[in-house]
Amino acid sequence: MEKNSAIGVFDSGMGGLTVAHAVKKLLPNEQLIYFGDSAHLHYGDKSAATIQAYSVKICDVLLQQGCKVILIACNSASAAAYDLVKAYVGSKSLVLNVIDPVVAYLAKAYDKSNIGLIGTKQTVGSGVYHQKLKAAAPSSALRALATPLLAPMIEEGFHKNDISNQIIGEYLKQPDLTNIEALILGCTHYPLIKNQVVAFFDDSVEVIDSSDIVAKALYNLLSENDLLGVGKPNHDRFLVSDFTPSFEAAAKLFFQKEVALEKHVLWE
Amino acid sequence: MEKNSAIGVFDSGMGGLTVAHAVKKLLPNEQLIYFGDSAHLHYGDKSAATIQAYSVKICDVLLQQGCKVILIACNSASAAAYDLVKAYVGSKSLVLNVIDPVVAYLAKAYDKSNIGLIGTKQTVGSGVYHQKLKAAAPSSALRALATPLLAPMIEEGFHKNDISNQIIGEYLKQPDLTNIEALILGCTHYPLIKNQVVAFFDDSVEVIDSSDIVAKALYNLLSENDLLGVGKPNHDRFLVSDFTPSFEAAAKLFFQKEVALEKHVLWE
Repeated sequence: MEKNSAIGVFDSGMGGLTVAHAVKKLLPNEQLIYFGDSAHLHYGDKSAATIQAYSVKICDVLLQQGCKVILIACNSASAAAYDLVKAYVGSKSLVLNVIDPVVAYLAKAYDKSNIGLIGTKQTVGSGVYHQKLKAAAPSSALRALATPLLAPMIEEGFHKNDISNQIIGEYLKQPDLTNIEALILGCTHYPLIKNQVVAFFDDSVEVIDSSDIVAKALYNLLSENDLLGVGKPNHDRFLVSDFTPSFEAAAKLFFQKEVALEKHVLWE
Repeated sequence: MEKNSAIGVFDSGMGGLTVAHAVKKLLPNEQLIYFGDSAHLHYGDKSAATIQAYSVKICDVLLQQGCKVILIACNSASAAAYDLVKAYVGSKSLVLNVIDPVVAYLAKAYDKSNIGLIGTKQTVGSGVYHQKLKAAAPSSALRALATPLLAPMIEEGFHKNDISNQIIGEYLKQPDLTNIEALILGCTHYPLIKNQVVAFFDDSVEVIDSSDIVAKALYNLLSENDLLGVGKPNHDRFLVSDFTPSFEAAAKLFFQKEVALEKHVLWE
């Protein structure tokens, strides 16, 4: 691992670009290599074994690119495949997921609180937030709700309008989420609806967008390992396992600027 | 090919079960072998090349099962992969898609009309309905709109309620669909919202659910080839490339009865 190697970031599609965006903002001297597994999206509805198989294949690609760290920028993959990826990658690269930094933050700020979680079926059903919070903050209680329509809704541009407010409201009013003090946005798509979620709770609940927390954790991880990049970085790269114009549009939405996608087929 | 061989049916997931249901109703003496490519759903957002690759792998499975006919029960795959599947399968099996029977119906009933189409990005973007209608009914005009949020909305149970009515209304009021006399439901999920679509147009537009039309076309195809099943058929089988409890729930929703899913991994 070398200081000027790239930061590898992967997700089932484009949502992880919200995390990549936060990383780039905090760490402008780093080269990013993003992999969006658009041939297989979305992971949120798939089984753990399937997500694990895809994740290993993606790690092969990122290791070939010599990445010094692999950031799993997808809650479903973080839940299903983090332990496997860490074992698979071994000493070749550092590994970070999007769940542990949020749990560490909650254990400090909300150690005796009711905490809500929204995310995909895979993320919520895995119970990984429950387990990790129980270990880190045993007096907290987690209330979780799968909200599978939110990610496609955001991707399709149904956000910031009445319909999305209604869909969001329909989910958030469920009894599963009553009496919470903080709410984890447990999907990397959700930063785009953060303001609507904040408005729903009328500022009475802290809405936790993991992207900035994860970017800070990545900074600390690189710093501790003396692996922060120096000088002018190489150009960022954005690989996708399938290419369509709508992925390009989604990429722009999530990364907040135009990116050139390169097709890189996974199964060959 | 033998009379008592199975009818193979495939889709990217569970939506094709609406077509399988119509087939079973019309042809109770036939064994169905259904393949839902749940490891790769949804096809509607993917490129033609990717859908083609998946379709060929699925055909291998159905041919191994000795299917006498392969019904592509997915508009996206019918649009992207029908010609390839027909060439790939050759004389080993008959092949039918869900688009041609609907075009044949429209050419008779609406040969001088404005016809609307809603479907996935893949189906609409492929232009296949345009091409086929132009050939079969040159005086008709097609007005097409991609409605990518409808399939996940239906799968997630957001149907038959106010929110789904609003999403449906938001799409159907688009200028793309004005002055139509018929509307093709160009996705095998959409039969579940047919009544809401009919209500939106206040009965002024014929809403065309392809499942019954396709089942009749399949009956005719088997009959012409003297391949209609006789006697008591073998048990239907439902293979999926990934298994989760939510697929089982979706299967029940679309097939209108409980089905036992068998996992059959595609990439091995």
